[in-house]
Amino acid sequence: MSTKEKYVPGLDGVIASETAISFLDTEQEKIIIRGHELIELSKSNDYIDIVHLLLNGTLPDSTEKLVLEKELTTNYDIPTDVMKLLALLPKQTHPMDGLRTGLSALSGYDEDIENRSLEANKRRAYALLGNLPAITVNSYRLIHGQEAVQPNQELSYSANFLYMITGEEPEAWEAEIFDRSLLLYSEHEMPNSTFTARVIASTNSDLYGALTGGVASLKGNLHGGANEAVMYMLNEAKSVGEFEELLQKKLMKKEKIMGFGHRVYMKKMDPRALVMKESLKQLCDKKGDSLLLEMCEAGEKVMREEKGLYPNLDYYAAPVYWMLGIPIGLYTPIFFSARTAGLAAHVIEQHNNNRLFRPRVNYIGESY
Amino acid sequence: MSTKEKYVPGLDGVIASETAISFLDTEQEKIIIRGHELIELSKSNDYIDIVHLLLNGTLPDSTEKLVLEKELTTNYDIPTDVMKLLALLPKQTHPMDGLRTGLSALSGYDEDIENRSLEANKRRAYALLGNLPAITVNSYRLIHGQEAVQPNQELSYSANFLYMITGEEPEAWEAEIFDRSLLLYSEHEMPNSTFTARVIASTNSDLYGALTGGVASLKGNLHGGANEAVMYMLNEAKSVGEFEELLQKKLMKKEKIMGFGHRVYMKKMDPRALVMKESLKQLCDKKGDSLLLEMCEAGEKVMREEKGLYPNLDYYAAPVYWMLGIPIGLYTPIFFSARTAGLAAHVIEQHNNNRLFRPRVNYIGESY
Repeated sequence: MSTKEKYVPGLDGVIASETAISFLDTEQEKIIIRGHELIELSKSNDYIDIVHLLLNGTLPDSTEKLVLEKELTTNYDIPTDVMKLLALLPKQTHPMDGLRTGLSALSGYDEDIENRSLEANKRRAYALLGNLPAITVNSYRLIHGQEAVQPNQELSYSANFLYMITGEEPEAWEAEIFDRSLLLYSEHEMPNSTFTARVIASTNSDLYGALTGGVASLKGNLHGGANEAVMYMLNEAKSVGEFEELLQKKLMKKEKIMGFGHRVYMKKMDPRALVMKESLKQLCDKKGDSLLLEMCEAGEKVMREEKGLYPNLDYYAAPVYWMLGIPIGLYTPIFFSARTAGLAAHVIEQHNNNRLFRPRVNYIGESY
Repeated sequence: MSTKEKYVPGLDGVIASETAISFLDTEQEKIIIRGHELIELSKSNDYIDIVHLLLNGTLPDSTEKLVLEKELTTNYDIPTDVMKLLALLPKQTHPMDGLRTGLSALSGYDEDIENRSLEANKRRAYALLGNLPAITVNSYRLIHGQEAVQPNQELSYSANFLYMITGEEPEAWEAEIFDRSLLLYSEHEMPNSTFTARVIASTNSDLYGALTGGVASLKGNLHGGANEAVMYMLNEAKSVGEFEELLQKKLMKKEKIMGFGHRVYMKKMDPRALVMKESLKQLCDKKGDSLLLEMCEAGEKVMREEKGLYPNLDYYAAPVYWMLGIPIGLYTPIFFSARTAGLAAHVIEQHNNNRLFRPRVNYIGESY
């Protein structure tokens, strides 16, 4: 009635792929991206560097970087009919569902969609990365009955993205903080959405399909939805004391508290959270308002003492996005946009050395 | 640099889930659906019976069946704005991509989308199964610049589906053959699309997202796309001799020939193919034209003798759909529509006893 194999719920610890893209080295507590440490990269590189590293295997020299930036800039605009299509979605559509529908529709504009060569896949990935700020922001705006906003080709990738979100050209330091969040979100080994994308790509399906599945996966509140949940929780309290009380109450009621712990890091700190916490400090200094930082630090203490849990990236990305003036509904779509660089690299790797994912089951149903 | 676990490409033979839904018993060569054998079910039950079996665990009595049929019928219509949205897709959009975009857009109409209870999930599954013929057929028609077609609430599920496809009310025996194909496609343990749906659902994401990923997976030519590929191949030849020659040529060039073999059945015959072959015989008799049957049988012989491979369901579903007057571009979307019954059952099972899928990797990239 079942095979002899051992069943591991959630494929916990099971090796699903060989990859040259990234690795969470839990012993050394390092996030490795193509041989580089992500935290080190965040100190002297920007998101575009990481896009190049993920998709080409190396950090770009200055010429390569200019070429890549131009490739993305020329893809800032999305087709007018996709805008019209997004405007037809009901007002209550979840922002991630709007993004998913927009991405799905884009596949029809790819004249070369059946081409799975490395070159075609890379071109497709660059085009999509260029498209993503406009898809992400306008799906959100059009669903909510706001006017579409046009990209500004004069601005860098992250500055344009943030400009489209807030409607105001950001200061250089604001764009830099936002860029750092994209960099930190860009790739993280084999979380559920990356696994989803590789499983889909293994049928020889295309990048659009793999990414559509990725959005669906990241929407779940056990995955990408966590950054939104953190912000709603922070907004429930008006002071450090109230936030501590709120967490204690949730702990008493055994409610799941988002933004803490991580399957793979276990009880250790997510090193990305430390970088994002520094960005939050910088933001608080610039804005002369440190309430969110104080609340977050107090929450960190409560969770460490009560549960031995440490914050993950989402816990500090949420207040950073809030202070940058980003609507909460865009937090997970932004996470997805940033992660598209990593997802595309995984889809390309899967296509280049493929074996269809087709596991088995243990049957525990009615006997026969 | 890597964990100590063994890496199995494609998770071949790895147990990914415990399930009470279905099991491929390769020793006894039986396809089990909740304790029943699928081939036996195909002799005295129809697709609606299997929908009830998959989603409720039992075959319906006559009252339960009437209730279920009414539930589906009341959901035959899809929102006008979804029709408008589908009409905006570019003419070159792949039919599976059109279906994916339409399904994705439907999520915005679910007033209760955050509810993951068994009741809400079942209601959602029935609504989607009711919607699917209209989404499937109209996404295809509108992309190709044809007028939308309205469902006919007077007809049974399969008769209405076939009517919407061909524009003509089918004879009872035609609707029966089409219904049998839906039944055979309804569920098949843990193929890539089912796995995709469960992986996505495990983030606590919703049925729409899981199905959207499922469409993306089934589109791949290593999975659902096979039935289309079979028909294009059959259409390349005009006679039995030409078809044999074509297969021999492909074998010489070591091209992959679709419609033969199956990861789990290995070298044995897919029992569903035998049932579909009987339906093809019936169709050939009724229409007085047995060319496709003769070609398929000759192809079967070539592949058995040259490669020891036996046909799978797709090999006989393709000529059956052709003789029913179904456009080739709809073969895979129809497969998906039928499989939605099984996918929904798996998503519900995953939500009811969940563990987030989050495997690991073997890192084979640059050292650090």
